[in-house]
Amino acid sequence: MTSRLTMALHALGMIAVEGPKAPGAPITSEALAASINTNPVVVRRVLADLRRAGLVETRRGVGGGVVLARRPERITLQAVWEALESQEQLFGRHPAGPNPACPVGRCVAEYLEGLYGDAEAALKASLGERTLADLQRDVAAHLPAARTACARGEAAPTSRRARPPGRRRATRTAIGR
Amino acid sequence: MTSRLTMALHALGMIAVEGPKAPGAPITSEALAASINTNPVVVRRVLADLRRAGLVETRRGVGGGVVLARRPERITLQAVWEALESQEQLFGRHPAGPNPACPVGRCVAEYLEGLYGDAEAALKASLGERTLADLQRDVAAHLPAARTACARGEAAPTSRRARPPGRRRATRTAIGR
Repeated sequence: MTSRLTMALHALGMIAVEGPKAPGAPITSEALAASINTNPVVVRRVLADLRRAGLVETRRGVGGGVVLARRPERITLQAVWEALESQEQLFGRHPAGPNPACPVGRCVAEYLEGLYGDAEAALKASLGERTLADLQRDVAAHLPAARTACARGEAAPTSRRARPPGRRRATRTAIGR
Repeated sequence: MTSRLTMALHALGMIAVEGPKAPGAPITSEALAASINTNPVVVRRVLADLRRAGLVETRRGVGGGVVLARRPERITLQAVWEALESQEQLFGRHPAGPNPACPVGRCVAEYLEGLYGDAEAALKASLGERTLADLQRDVAAHLPAARTACARGEAAPTSRRARPPGRRRATRTAIGR
């Protein structure tokens, strides 16, 4: 999954937390992009998927922007995943398909479809255990400390952050002949 | 997850199914690459990860190749995932990190680490329910029909296959202003 899910959850979290404070001024894609630290065009594409899935609505014109289309407790994080997943593939398959002349490869490829289907279902079920209301509550609880840290110019904590993408080991050893 | 897991499971499945038939001639990375339909160099990199994780062993010299380092029932598919995952990231994070000056973004990013950790754990647990012996049995059960299909030049079934990667919807609508 590319960063689109992260961007979508970030956008929804911001709308859920910040939106109610200014009901007359929905959050714009520019404001979301500034917080996500990306281009508004990228954010609008993600929002378009969320809108198609019935999770957000657009208010057009002066003072327009994006609002939630449902209450946060009625938006599961699985629904957010599903709003985006039609353009994603969790498990990469054979780059060029398995060799069509190899019966073992054909059988393995079939087995993997079932395996990956089950694993993706488990992942989705995990996301389905939380709603946007959970995210909203968690953010609201940590916001005062984060405001203080931002005001002091402190760097964001990195301990819970992901491994840097694309890290490779320094040495590689060939196997086989 | 890129196609490396698929290539690793394909290789292990082939070694488990074909290896015991010719104990004196371990399977080579070239034979695996031919079935996976990719370059032997790519396969050797995947095998190197599996070897570091103690899942395969290399027999060098004439008649050398790759063999399983444990019995198939002692290789869970979660272990295969873990052998590769240090170079992978299941969920893409913020492309450039969230805006460090935005407290909401900082809180959302922290929340997502916990969310993604739980979802990845659920996915891993699902993979942990199966072993290479399951894959081996499934492939062996379907191999006679696959051999017939290959001999007849029939195309592999596509109904259980994945969505084509990178599919985009034809139209996009901007949201927000």
